[in-house]
Amino acid sequence: MLRLFYAPATCALATHIALIEAGADYDLIRLSFAAEDQRKPAFLAINPKGRVPALVTEQGVLTETPALLAYVAQRYPAARLAPFDDAFALARVQAFNSYLCATLHVAHSHRMRGYRWADEPDAILAMQRKVPASVSQCFEVVERELTGPWVMGGAYTICDPYLFTLAQWMEADGVDTDRFPNVIAHRRRCAERAAVQRALAEESGMA
Amino acid sequence: MLRLFYAPATCALATHIALIEAGADYDLIRLSFAAEDQRKPAFLAINPKGRVPALVTEQGVLTETPALLAYVAQRYPAARLAPFDDAFALARVQAFNSYLCATLHVAHSHRMRGYRWADEPDAILAMQRKVPASVSQCFEVVERELTGPWVMGGAYTICDPYLFTLAQWMEADGVDTDRFPNVIAHRRRCAERAAVQRALAEESGMA
Repeated sequence: MLRLFYAPATCALATHIALIEAGADYDLIRLSFAAEDQRKPAFLAINPKGRVPALVTEQGVLTETPALLAYVAQRYPAARLAPFDDAFALARVQAFNSYLCATLHVAHSHRMRGYRWADEPDAILAMQRKVPASVSQCFEVVERELTGPWVMGGAYTICDPYLFTLAQWMEADGVDTDRFPNVIAHRRRCAERAAVQRALAEESGMA
Repeated sequence: MLRLFYAPATCALATHIALIEAGADYDLIRLSFAAEDQRKPAFLAINPKGRVPALVTEQGVLTETPALLAYVAQRYPAARLAPFDDAFALARVQAFNSYLCATLHVAHSHRMRGYRWADEPDAILAMQRKVPASVSQCFEVVERELTGPWVMGGAYTICDPYLFTLAQWMEADGVDTDRFPNVIAHRRRCAERAAVQRALAEESGMA
């Protein structure tokens, strides 16, 4: 049994969706960022980095979304969520997810978590002002590559729940969604999947 | 034959070292960041993101260091640079590299590339002032986990050239290296490897 520590409306949703797509047996532990659960000793004992997602496996705890997504794909090969038998195809999946993690998500984080990179309030406000532009620039890269129906083309992979998750934040980040029809069509396509609907229901407490 | 586009003193060094460790046949194309080669049409045709590293394979171009490192490990299995037959062990490798990419490298980037996340010169200076603290915080995470001799313990993996590469920048980032004896011992251990010495010599034009 896998155990996923998550907080609502975070990137943990990507791993949550992947677990459902894979047919995994899992349970969910919800953290409240408002209550700063992620900084409390009980959670720091699970993930000293104080971040979600964290996935508890029989062998130990794993962190970092690109690693969790690949782990789920490799552990449940029947779901065919990543092309582990083809080094080039797998590298394309990993490159996409790495870009989301290290560039797109990072650009987004400057809206809410600017304190990570500067102390002065004016600097933090300056970062917030740039988020619509910097996040849009990342979506331009994604938009250009996205031919559909899925990120990698015909096959649904671990790239899809990750992009879907980060695309949840476009409006709040001040991105003009009209500029990104491929991303929006992809978001809509993902939202129709049963796994996505179940994950969102579980996170909202409605499942 | 693989072709690696790199610039000296960038994270491309990690992939360069991994190619040598793997025994790969490759050639190197050097970009000058001073001349802004990475923004010129010739390179944007290779990698529209305008970043290094980019690895040209027989099947197409790959980008993003964690993806390139895993690709090299999977393509050259005899070098045993990543545990592809063990999902949990592979996820630990990928989690470490993802942390380096999305957290440590990103913290470092606020020293030289603050313009990505704010426009105002004062905000960019504020980011620079925080780099010693934010990068040190990342090295605290690494230091705690690093028991040696290699990142994953007894086996040298694709985590090692990546950490070695980012640890090159500690002094310039204002990190007090005395606080990180495990990281410094690891950096010294890596520097003794023939592959590392060859990569550094090739990048300096001395090979």
